[in-house]
Amino acid sequence: MGLREDADNIIHASIQAVLPDEAVSKALQGKSFGNGNLYMVAVGKAAWQMAYTASKILNDRLKAGVVVTKYGHVQGQLSRTQCFEAGHPVPDENSFIGTQAALTLVEHLTPEDTVLFLLSGGGSALFEKPLVSGAELSSITRQLLACGANITEMNTIRKRLSAVKGGRFANACKPAQVFSIVLSDILGNPLDMIASGPTYPDSSTCENALNIARKYQLKLSDHARKLLQTETPKTLDNVETLITGSVSNLCQAAATACQELGYKPFILTDQLTCEAREAGAFLSAIAKTWQHTKKSLAFIAGGETVVHLTGQGKGGRNQEIALAAAEGLSHLTDTALFSLGSDGTDGPTDAAGGYCDTNTKTLLKQQGISIYETLQNNDAYHALEKTGGLILTGATGTNVNDVTVLLIRRNAC
Amino acid sequence: MGLREDADNIIHASIQAVLPDEAVSKALQGKSFGNGNLYMVAVGKAAWQMAYTASKILNDRLKAGVVVTKYGHVQGQLSRTQCFEAGHPVPDENSFIGTQAALTLVEHLTPEDTVLFLLSGGGSALFEKPLVSGAELSSITRQLLACGANITEMNTIRKRLSAVKGGRFANACKPAQVFSIVLSDILGNPLDMIASGPTYPDSSTCENALNIARKYQLKLSDHARKLLQTETPKTLDNVETLITGSVSNLCQAAATACQELGYKPFILTDQLTCEAREAGAFLSAIAKTWQHTKKSLAFIAGGETVVHLTGQGKGGRNQEIALAAAEGLSHLTDTALFSLGSDGTDGPTDAAGGYCDTNTKTLLKQQGISIYETLQNNDAYHALEKTGGLILTGATGTNVNDVTVLLIRRNAC
Repeated sequence: MGLREDADNIIHASIQAVLPDEAVSKALQGKSFGNGNLYMVAVGKAAWQMAYTASKILNDRLKAGVVVTKYGHVQGQLSRTQCFEAGHPVPDENSFIGTQAALTLVEHLTPEDTVLFLLSGGGSALFEKPLVSGAELSSITRQLLACGANITEMNTIRKRLSAVKGGRFANACKPAQVFSIVLSDILGNPLDMIASGPTYPDSSTCENALNIARKYQLKLSDHARKLLQTETPKTLDNVETLITGSVSNLCQAAATACQELGYKPFILTDQLTCEAREAGAFLSAIAKTWQHTKKSLAFIAGGETVVHLTGQGKGGRNQEIALAAAEGLSHLTDTALFSLGSDGTDGPTDAAGGYCDTNTKTLLKQQGISIYETLQNNDAYHALEKTGGLILTGATGTNVNDVTVLLIRRNAC
Repeated sequence: MGLREDADNIIHASIQAVLPDEAVSKALQGKSFGNGNLYMVAVGKAAWQMAYTASKILNDRLKAGVVVTKYGHVQGQLSRTQCFEAGHPVPDENSFIGTQAALTLVEHLTPEDTVLFLLSGGGSALFEKPLVSGAELSSITRQLLACGANITEMNTIRKRLSAVKGGRFANACKPAQVFSIVLSDILGNPLDMIASGPTYPDSSTCENALNIARKYQLKLSDHARKLLQTETPKTLDNVETLITGSVSNLCQAAATACQELGYKPFILTDQLTCEAREAGAFLSAIAKTWQHTKKSLAFIAGGETVVHLTGQGKGGRNQEIALAAAEGLSHLTDTALFSLGSDGTDGPTDAAGGYCDTNTKTLLKQQGISIYETLQNNDAYHALEKTGGLILTGATGTNVNDVTVLLIRRNAC
C-alpha cells in the first residue's frame, strides 16, 4: 500500500527536526552575539548534545562553558567547557557543584558579553543551588507533598529557596545578555515551569508564597521564612528566549513531511492529554467522516496522552492509540494512523510507538486477537508485533513528547 | 460575553434543520411523482410527524397512507391515512397488524404509482411481518443473543425471517416506484441497518445465514431453515433514497449557523463514539492550540459518545463532554464548548446537554465543586446547573444523535 513507507518517512523527518542538534543549529542561524565575550551554560538531559552542537557552530567564538546533565549523558570532552553529571530526578551534591560552576562562570561579566543558555527537560533537578540547607529543602519538599500542594504551589515556594530558579540565573548573568534556547518537554511550553524558569521572569509573588506557607502550616526556619519574603525578578530585560524544539515543532515538522508526500496537513492540537485509547477512537472517527475526500489528508495531534492500567500486558500510550484506532479504520480504504514518542521509547518497551491501517484488525482476527481484550490487558505491544505495527527507532536523543498522525491517501483526479 | 447567546442560536438552528418536518419538506421540494397514484407508508418513532408534514405538502395528491409508530406518538387523525401505534423496542401484535396494512396498501400497484416511504428510528420493531410464528421468532432471537452473535449476524438471520426487512418491502411495492425519505439515528447511515432496510438491497447472502446457523447450532424448524435459503433482493431498481435527517445534517446545520455568526466552521467528524469525558478533553486540547487564531473558529463533532458509570450522580454524555472540557478551557479567552442530544434528552435528565466556557471552572471552584470528582460521580447535571450551563430545549420531536461545538471567538482585525 505504501502507507507504511509514508509513515516511516514522516517519522524520520519529524524526529530529525527536533533533535537537539537541529534545535540549536536553527536557533543560532545568523546570530553573531556582538563584540563581547560569549559564554555557554547548558542544563538538562539533552545539555551535552546541545552544547556539542553549539560548540561546533560557534567554535573559537566561545570563551568558556559549563554543562550539567544526567549521569551517563556526557559523551566526550568539549573544548573550553566543564562537563558535570548529576542526580535526576532528585538533585544531589553534583547538581549543586555543577550549578555553582555555572554561577561562577557568569560572575563579573560586562554588558557586551552574552551567556548562551541551552535548556532541556530535567533541568529542575540538575540545575540547583539551594539557599537553605539540603536537609531543610528536603523537609519542606516532603511537607508540601504530604499536604497535597499542587505543582504551582510547590514551585512558588521552591523558586524562593533557590539561587537560580524563577529568573534568578538571568539576574546573576547581569549586566551580560542572555540568549536562551529551549528544548521543551512540557506541553504548551510554560517557560516559568521548564526547569523552574532560570532565565524567565517569575509570575508568583512573595504574598503567594506566604499564603501557601500559612495554608499548609509549613514548618520553616527563620532563614527560610525570610527567603519566602525575598522577591524573584518580575521582568528581565537582558534575556531573549527561543523555543526551537517542542511538541509544536514536532507537529509542524510532521505537517511539512506530510505535505511533501502530497497530503494536505491539518494540526488539530499540540496539547493532547486525554486517555490514549480514546484519542485513537476520536481520530478514527475523523477518518470515517473524511473518507469521501478527493485529496490526500493528514490530521496531526501532538501531546502526551495517558494510560490507566487495567491489565498486566506490555505496551505504551502511543501503541494504545494505534491499536485503538485499528478498530475504526478496519472498514475504510487507504487510511493509516501512527503514533510515537519523540524519545524513541513508548512505555516500558523497545518500541517508539505503533502503526495501524485498514488491515490491522483483520490480521489480528486471523490470529485470534481481539483489539478490545488486548487494550483491557494493556498489551498493545504484542498485538502490534504480530501485524508488523511496531515503530522501532531506538533512542533518539531528544524528548519533546509524542505525535500522532492520521493519513488518508487518495489519488488526485 | 455573548458566547452563550451564540451557542443558543446555533443550537436552535441545528435542531430546526433536523426536525422531521424540515427533513420531509426538503426531500419533497420539487418532487411531482409523475401521473400515477401516490401512496404513503411512514414507519418509526417520528412516523406520525413525517406523515403529517408530507400530508400537508402533498395534500390531495396522496391517495392513501399507513403510519406505524410507537405507543403515544399519534397526535391526531390524518386524512386518507390509517395510523397504528405498536410495540417498541419489542414488536407486538399491533406491529404485525400495522405492517400488514402497509403491505395491503401497496398490493396491485402499477408502474406509474409511487410509494412514499418515510423511515425513522425504531422501525425494526415497529415494522415487521414475521414469516415464522411469533414463538419461533422469539426463540431464534433468544438463541442468537445467548451465543453472543453480533448485530450483523442477528440481522442476516432476521431479514430472512421477515416479509418486509432486507429490501423485501420495496419488492412488495413492485412494479410501483418507491421514494424513501430517511431520518437516520445510526451513525454513518447504514441504510441496510436502519429498520433492517425495508427498501434497501441486502448485502448478506443465504450462505452467510446458513453459516451462522451452523456456527451457533441454532435450533430451527424445517420452515425456518427453508427461509434461510430464500434470497433477499440484491438490487432494487424501483427505489430512490434520500437521507435528509441525520447527524451529518445536524453537523452541517451547526456549521452553517456558526458561519452566519462569523465563525469559520470545521466539521471534525460526524461519527464520534468514544468516551464522553475524553471527547471533551480532546476538544479542549484543540481549543488550546488554536487560541492564537485571528479569525473566529468553530470545531464541530457529531456522533454518539458513551459514558461508563463510576458514580451515582445525575447527568448524560453531552453534559459530561461539556464539564470535562471546562477544565482545559479555564485558562483560555473567549472560548466555549457545548454539546447536546438532538432529541432534547441527555441521559435520564430534563436537559438536552451542557455548555461551558472559560469561566465555568472558576464558578465551580467558588462553590467548592471539583470537575474531576464530579465526573467520577457522573454528576455533571448538578455541577452545570450551578454555572447556568444546562441546555434545556424540551423534547424536540427528532432523534439524529448528538452534536458538540467548540467556539473560539476573535474580533477580526
